Amino acid sequence: MIIDNVLIVDPIDGEFTGSIEFEDKILSIRKYDCTPKYVLMPGFADTHTHGFMGIDCMQSTKEEFKQWADLVEKEGVTYLFPTTVSADFKMLEKVIKKFSSAKHSSLFYLHLEGPFINKERAGAQNKKYITDFDGKIIDLERIKIMTIAPEIKGFFELLKILKENKVTVSIGHSNATFDIFKKAYEAGVNRITHFPNALPQLHHREIGIVGGVFLYKPFVEIIPDLIHLSQDFLRLVYKLLGPDRIILVTDSISATGLKDGIYDLGGLLVKVKDGIARLEDGTLAGSTLKYSDGLRNFKKVTNCSLKDLSKVSSYNALKSVGIDGGRIKEGYPAKFVLLNQDLQIIKVYN
Amino acid sequence: MIIDNVLIVDPIDGEFTGSIEFEDKILSIRKYDCTPKYVLMPGFADTHTHGFMGIDCMQSTKEEFKQWADLVEKEGVTYLFPTTVSADFKMLEKVIKKFSSAKHSSLFYLHLEGPFINKERAGAQNKKYITDFDGKIIDLERIKIMTIAPEIKGFFELLKILKENKVTVSIGHSNATFDIFKKAYEAGVNRITHFPNALPQLHHREIGIVGGVFLYKPFVEIIPDLIHLSQDFLRLVYKLLGPDRIILVTDSISATGLKDGIYDLGGLLVKVKDGIARLEDGTLAGSTLKYSDGLRNFKKVTNCSLKDLSKVSSYNALKSVGIDGGRIKEGYPAKFVLLNQDLQIIKVYN
Repeated sequence: MIIDNVLIVDPIDGEFTGSIEFEDKILSIRKYDCTPKYVLMPGFADTHTHGFMGIDCMQSTKEEFKQWADLVEKEGVTYLFPTTVSADFKMLEKVIKKFSSAKHSSLFYLHLEGPFINKERAGAQNKKYITDFDGKIIDLERIKIMTIAPEIKGFFELLKILKENKVTVSIGHSNATFDIFKKAYEAGVNRITHFPNALPQLHHREIGIVGGVFLYKPFVEIIPDLIHLSQDFLRLVYKLLGPDRIILVTDSISATGLKDGIYDLGGLLVKVKDGIARLEDGTLAGSTLKYSDGLRNFKKVTNCSLKDLSKVSSYNALKSVGIDGGRIKEGYPAKFVLLNQDLQIIKVYN
Repeated sequence: MIIDNVLIVDPIDGEFTGSIEFEDKILSIRKYDCTPKYVLMPGFADTHTHGFMGIDCMQSTKEEFKQWADLVEKEGVTYLFPTTVSADFKMLEKVIKKFSSAKHSSLFYLHLEGPFINKERAGAQNKKYITDFDGKIIDLERIKIMTIAPEIKGFFELLKILKENKVTVSIGHSNATFDIFKKAYEAGVNRITHFPNALPQLHHREIGIVGGVFLYKPFVEIIPDLIHLSQDFLRLVYKLLGPDRIILVTDSISATGLKDGIYDLGGLLVKVKDGIARLEDGTLAGSTLKYSDGLRNFKKVTNCSLKDLSKVSSYNALKSVGIDGGRIKEGYPAKFVLLNQDLQIIKVYN
């Protein structure tokens, strides 16, 4: 197949006009001057999403996983990391089993958010299941990311096991001091989950994880729904971190794309009003954000280049978990999104 | 007079070896290769200090102001800005009068901290005197800095008067939102008092003044006593702001250089224990920091260059209030500090 007269956006090679020939993989790219109508970006990666349109990761059947991947493909997502919430191993094993049997070009790995997090920073995670690490671990073959608080007991033992199994640790739901963060960072942990939600605020006598993010160079997930973070904070993060460390995620729940109402998240009641999901006490409980809305929000608020946008929507996410992708370059998988000048999605190749 | 075979440090021209000839002003500088024993830096500016060795700005006599300037000259301070605390105009006028009659080569201007600040962020300021601006103002001839919370009533009216009188507004003891900060910044206010003490913490849905400091380019006073701010925070500020916006201040009180005990600060009881000054409720109440200790702390923690150190200890402070100084260059006043390689002060020229 060929797409011609298009503005191609690659996170490394930048923005250029031309054509692209591909089958399963990209065969060749030709650069030439033209006045393109559309923009071609690498397919998006959503590394943090709990559900969509009534499908909930914890309850999802094999068919629903595929359905979910189909639904978010329309949002441009070609790498979907369904994300669990804190649960016991039996429940998680059930999810892993169903996920493993679902075949779809967007489905590779799961993200386990919890249960090894800090109860004091539970957010909308069910405290009942939050726990230290006691040496027991589940099958990690289809797990690529685990959100963990580095202050839990057994953290470094767990880290060792996860490293051996090529699972990326993402720090989240944590009260870690800067010293604890630093130890984890120096041990190779360089990813933060939905920064800086469910983390302590920057303090001038204990800079914590937020200070660590500003001092060092970890990747950070951010939720660009303009609810979890203010527009000013988005601008601040983009200014301080630059385009190479930000990862846009939805953190969407099953209510996404559905009407306001009462939903379930890992055994907790979530009330969605005006599209904002909260526990009864007001705590934000994931989002109802669709990926392409988040993409447009980020572009609008930061006024970043399309090249930078391709980094934060695909390349960085994959790089942060050790996957070589998110490129429009010969030899890479033909996963891309065709958009118009307003960044509305025209067609997705996956 | 001539100082030769010295390492000269200028905030703009950088570090070089040579000699300097001066009388009241610097007559000539000669650069040549040599192995210098000493370092020559511009005289330090302490733009925020309430007292020293039993002398308290609010109670100081004419003789004590001179004594104070003599005492901190040994610390390398050649620009001393005695700083008042929140008080009524009658008390402030008394201070201004006595200060005005004290002649010393280090004494030019006062810094008024309050009373136009936010009661909720009083810190160790006496709430009794904290007030909005009602249109009445005192004689501003000898005032160069006023610490103000921009959210007080009448702020922009006050700002106009201060601008006309060449008084620099420094934002402090404030709960201002980012929007209020931004309005003040866009109106020309670009200085923050003892950042980020007595300011709200950075929040991801209201980035406030701290976020404003990271997004824009105001000057910021910081207290390098390693008590008001952690070493990590110092490193963070130096990394994020760079050397051109940081102003080292002591915020020292009358207990500085004296024994632990009970002292008075603007009518509030301050208990000094192990050199740390606190109100009864534990709130930090200024410092007992000597300028050259703060200088060495900053150098040690940040590992900055001597050139950068000359910026944060003199040039930036003066620039922030519109004074052309803090240079070692022909034509500038012969105000400098001779230090050994450990940054211990050998001699001060003033």
